[in-house]
Amino acid sequence: MHKTISHQDQLALATELATQNVRNGGGPFGAIIVTSDGRVFEGFNRVTANNDPTAHAEVTAIRTACAETETFDLSGAILYSSCEPCPMCLASSLWARIEAVYFAADRHDAAEAGFDDATFYEFFDTPVAKRSMPVTQLVINDAGHLAPFTAWAALDSRIEY
Amino acid sequence: MHKTISHQDQLALATELATQNVRNGGGPFGAIIVTSDGRVFEGFNRVTANNDPTAHAEVTAIRTACAETETFDLSGAILYSSCEPCPMCLASSLWARIEAVYFAADRHDAAEAGFDDATFYEFFDTPVAKRSMPVTQLVINDAGHLAPFTAWAALDSRIEY
Repeated sequence: MHKTISHQDQLALATELATQNVRNGGGPFGAIIVTSDGRVFEGFNRVTANNDPTAHAEVTAIRTACAETETFDLSGAILYSSCEPCPMCLASSLWARIEAVYFAADRHDAAEAGFDDATFYEFFDTPVAKRSMPVTQLVINDAGHLAPFTAWAALDSRIEY
Repeated sequence: MHKTISHQDQLALATELATQNVRNGGGPFGAIIVTSDGRVFEGFNRVTANNDPTAHAEVTAIRTACAETETFDLSGAILYSSCEPCPMCLASSLWARIEAVYFAADRHDAAEAGFDDATFYEFFDTPVAKRSMPVTQLVINDAGHLAPFTAWAALDSRIEY
């Protein structure tokens, strides 16, 4: 019989990774990905350690799992995170085609520890005109903004994702 | 007198990078970051080329700019993208403390070209119970989920971000 680890036990392991990561100069976040065929990959927050604001535990777990399995599509994989994924990590999981996400602490616990996850969730619910970071569309020239997509559509060898 | 490039011209350059990137085996997306002191960094979509679902043009531009300037904080920088940043890229920009974002094509243009940006924006507006990818909090054990944050708070050498 195949021995499976419960979702709770995987989350407890991800949380242990998060605590270990603090001792290793990283942020207090850890993640585990279990692929559809049972391979396990770990991720750690390395934002300040690597000067990479995108190096959240979930993102580094996705990058590692994809690099090791040589795919950009983790369909059927489960992501376990010590803390609720921020919008960046949630959207990264969507692009990676993660099947389901489980987390232990939440965005409010993270806020109490000094992290902006909850604030950044609110950004998405804030009317465009009132956002802290303006995001503005500009017209560059007559349909020139579509040139990359035209080139893409014309490319027989394109790999869609 | 300091010669500045208009926002429109920077966007036209980012769009040219996007078209070039298609010829180089990448997706039809390009980005440029101009830091507060005027340094310029480019980014390209390498999702399928590098087996990295997080390697959108904006994210690779942020990673490159941070690596080259040896910081995780791009306060005052402007991000130009050939296409409207998806939620992952928008949240990455927030974490990188980007000041403002300009884009040319939008999420609907991307959808017509076969990309899921618009769908993933809708994910954030969808009630939790109806989401395509379930995101679930589980209790692991008595306050164990807070252990990483306790370790973090106790660490004198922690670098906040």
